[in-house]
Order: sequence, then structure tokens, then C-alpha cells
Amino acid sequence: MSLTVVGSMAFDALETPFGKTDKIVGGAATYISLSASYFVKPVNVVSVVGGDFDQDHIKLMHERNISTEGVQVKENEKSFFWSGRYFNDMNSRETLVTELNVLGDFDPIIPASYQGCEFLMLGNLAPQVQKTVIERLTRRPKLVVMDTMNFWMDIALEELKETMKLVDVLSINDEEARQLSGEYSLVKAAKKIMAMGPKFLIIKKGEHGALLFNEDKIFFAPALPLEEVFDPTGAGDTFAGGFIGYIASTGDISFENMKRAVIHGSALASFCVEKFGTERLKNLSQEEIDARVQQFVNLVAVDTVVQ
Amino acid sequence: MSLTVVGSMAFDALETPFGKTDKIVGGAATYISLSASYFVKPVNVVSVVGGDFDQDHIKLMHERNISTEGVQVKENEKSFFWSGRYFNDMNSRETLVTELNVLGDFDPIIPASYQGCEFLMLGNLAPQVQKTVIERLTRRPKLVVMDTMNFWMDIALEELKETMKLVDVLSINDEEARQLSGEYSLVKAAKKIMAMGPKFLIIKKGEHGALLFNEDKIFFAPALPLEEVFDPTGAGDTFAGGFIGYIASTGDISFENMKRAVIHGSALASFCVEKFGTERLKNLSQEEIDARVQQFVNLVAVDTVVQ
Repeated sequence: MSLTVVGSMAFDALETPFGKTDKIVGGAATYISLSASYFVKPVNVVSVVGGDFDQDHIKLMHERNISTEGVQVKENEKSFFWSGRYFNDMNSRETLVTELNVLGDFDPIIPASYQGCEFLMLGNLAPQVQKTVIERLTRRPKLVVMDTMNFWMDIALEELKETMKLVDVLSINDEEARQLSGEYSLVKAAKKIMAMGPKFLIIKKGEHGALLFNEDKIFFAPALPLEEVFDPTGAGDTFAGGFIGYIASTGDISFENMKRAVIHGSALASFCVEKFGTERLKNLSQEEIDARVQQFVNLVAVDTVVQ
Repeated sequence: MSLTVVGSMAFDALETPFGKTDKIVGGAATYISLSASYFVKPVNVVSVVGGDFDQDHIKLMHERNISTEGVQVKENEKSFFWSGRYFNDMNSRETLVTELNVLGDFDPIIPASYQGCEFLMLGNLAPQVQKTVIERLTRRPKLVVMDTMNFWMDIALEELKETMKLVDVLSINDEEARQLSGEYSLVKAAKKIMAMGPKFLIIKKGEHGALLFNEDKIFFAPALPLEEVFDPTGAGDTFAGGFIGYIASTGDISFENMKRAVIHGSALASFCVEKFGTERLKNLSQEEIDARVQQFVNLVAVDTVVQ
């Protein structure tokens, strides 16, 4: 089942209470495609990088059956760069530098070989660019998942709402759900947001887990309580990659299967935060993933409680 | 299986975004005993009130098989009074008034009929008073559960640590776990706190659920996503009452059964927040409770995910 992923491929420079990095590879499409690659082959990436991008990372992507045919390389320009610092609680951060560079006028190109893909993951990007990708696919995918963030709610709300009408699943965090809906209660927020277009809504709550909504149904997936969160960068994208990757591998877009997909996304995200950047996502084994998924299942497992 | 509950019986005056109350009945022992009364009979309360306390509430307690033989009445004094205001997010509040009154020199008396109780719930009180109750029981209960709060960590940390050594289960919220342990990670915090005495630790995370720790085992119970949280007052005590009430009704203090108890405590707490004060806890039906518990089970239910 083919999966196309759209999003940034970038350099990040990170500071956490545990240390700091020079420029390391980051970006939504990077995390999503690596995470999805543990479930489905190929993963087709649409993105744009500068001549400065890390060729070893491109090689790693190819080794993991991630196609970069749709990754434009602008030799004389620089890749998107983001620098941020996390505070002690690891739940809040400040942006130190944002250099759009090649992302500033990103015009996504869909290679012919990507056409006909069954699953589309729109990583965080300008909503107009996300919409363009949907429009440039000659056949509508079986499932379109969109991730976005408060930044676009602040500066491009109308475009965001237009794009939301075209997708099946929206993935945002709890604060973004509140901002987008104007409702504090996440149950009320979810109803309002689903009325804007997406039939399914995922609300990510970081260390507090994730909620999946569809009609009147709610599923809750916990986050795994961890001894150390080393670097939260990319956790949301890694979640999205595991989610869509699992769905693409099964071809099943039922609510029941999406529940399993949320668990798999959560499991992959729990690996992501254990090391800086993409480090932990480069060579996971199937055994590690299965064991981690089982930990999530066990965490909430309880024998029948109603007598 | 007999249960003894120690804690305040008080008047609260509450302001929430949905309205405000005059003085209504509150206090840890009030919520704990009402909640536990849905599972076990009798519930024996040790507390102290002034001559101003609400006699209708005492009658309600008796109707629910809650014994007030251990509730001292100081006719010429006033009951403990607390007044607080919740902010819009309902997760934070400010204290407007605290009048200790009869609670200032509370010297708990254990009636002979309470002696030999198998389960003891120490609601939030000065740790020295909690310790006195344990010492005045002629036989150590099968399980002692202690609830406390940051206030005592600020002003009576050594007494708190002494009392903690004598209990089996400690129940605190996430911020209190961090304060008590000096660790941000709740997994690390739990290890440190269990090394201080309690074999089991419950960390309450409010709208984000609750964690139960024992040795290397972790169980997570979600909170039910609610459309409305009307008044969070007493939710933690109601949780504790459902937890210990369920355990007392089954007589089973295994980790597996404590998991079920956490779900029952969470279910009772989810009723509590639906109305002001104790209103919603006065006449729940078994069908309502069973259905709510089932909602908690369904919320995280997922078919086997590891293939």
C-alpha cells in the first residue's frame, strides 16, 4: 500500500537540559518518513532541500526504502533551519532561529511514480501548500491525514480551514484544538473541529497521551511514562508517521484499526524522545517495536472490572 | 470488610466559571466516605465538626450506612471552612479563605466499634494527626492508604515523611510527586517516593488520569474526557474513596485488584465534577456506576495490536 509524505526536510540545532547539538537533520517529512518506514514500503517523500543538505541522510532514507524522487534539491540555496531551546520541564520550548530558506517558496512537485498512492500524510507546512499537494494528485487517496500547528491558525486561518475540508484525519495538539475551536473541553472542541471537515481528529497531549475522535466515539492512548525524555523534537511527527505507516501497512481505515495505529504511533514517538534528533529512529528492530507496543497495551490492561 | 476513614468534614464556598455557592458541605472525609459507601458497608468516619454543621448531611451519611460515631461535635465552635475560586481552565484555583476552627487542635478519637477495621483511609490532614490515628488503632489494618498535599510538604515535611513510613499506599498529584521527590520524571519520582515507605504510589493527574506504581510495575488509568467539568472540588477525595471502597469490598490488595480499584475511583470522581460539591454523589445507582466504569474500560480498549 503506497504512502506519500509531504513536509519539511531541514536542519535543527537543539538545546535541551541534557546538552546541545550542532545542525542535525530534522523536519516533519524526515521524522514521518523514517517512522512510517518501519511499517510500509515504499514511503514516497515530497519536500525541498538546499545544496547543503546531508547526503548521508538521503542515503539512509534510500536504505530504508524511502523514495526521495519528490525531494527537490535547490543547489544554490540553503535548507530550512530551525533552532530551539527546551526548558527544564521539556514540555515548553522557545524558538531561537527560524530561517525558511528553500521552504519560503516551496512549490511541491509530485513525481509520476507517486501518482495513485493510497495514503497521503500532509506534514506540517503552509496549508496552501498542503492543499496544492492534494490538488496535484490525479486520484484522491483512500485516506488523507493532515498535521498542522498554531502558527498557521495565527497567520493563515482561512487557508487552513479550506485545506481541512479536504482531509480525513486532522492531527493537532490539545492547545491547538482549543485555539481552533474556542472550546476548553476537548470533547466539545473535537465536535466543532470535526464539523469543519475531518471525520477523524487526533488530539496529541504529549506526555499525557493522545485522543482519537470519530463521530461519538473516543479512544484514548496513554503516553508511556519514561524515566528520561532526552529530546522531544519530532515526537509529534514520529507519532504521525507511525500512525499512517501502520494504517498503510494494513490498508484498513476503520476506527478500530486507527486505534491500533494510534498505539503504534505512540510507541514510535516514545523511541524518538530517547535520543537527540532522529538518532533513535535510524535502526529500530521489529522486536523492539513489538515489545514497546506491548508495553503500551499492558500499561492500561485491566481484567473486567464490572461484575 | 470494615473501612475507617479519617479526614475533615467542612463547609466550602466555591466559585467556578459556572456559578458560586453559599457554604456547602465539603471536606475530605465527606467526599471519601460518600464515594466509598457505594462499595462497602459500614464506612466508619473519624472527624470533627462544630455546632454549626449540617444535620441533614449527617442524616444522609447515616442513610448511606456511614457511621459518624467517631465524628466529634464541638457545639460551641465552628466547622472548618474553606473558600476558593476556580479559574477558567478549571485546573487551577486560588484559596480565598481558610478558617481551621475545630480542625486547629483536632485530636482524633477512635470509637471501640471501629477497632479491628481492616482498611484505613487517611484523608488529607496534618501528617501528625494521620500518624496518631494509626497509633491509636489496636490492630494494624490490612491496608493503610494516605492522601496528602503540597501544603504539608511546605510546612511539615519531616512529620509527613514519618507518617509515610507507616502507610502502604500514598496518593498525591503529579506536582506534589515532583515536589516530594525533586524529580521531574514521574517514573523517577515514584521510585524515590516508594523508597520513603509506601509500597504503592498513586499519582493523580486530574484531567490526564492517574498512575499506579508498585515496584517496577506501572498502571495508567485515563480520565474520561468530559464535555463539562462543573466543579472539581473533592474529585481527588472521591477518587480515593472509590479506590479504597472497591478494595475493601473485595478484600483483595493485589496490584491487579488495585488497578480495578483505580478505575472505580476514577469513575466516581468523574461523577463528582458534574455538579457542585457532593450533589452528584448523593444518589448514584449501581447501573450508573457500572456504565461509567465500562466507559473507562472502553476508552482504552483495543484489540491485540502486535501481530
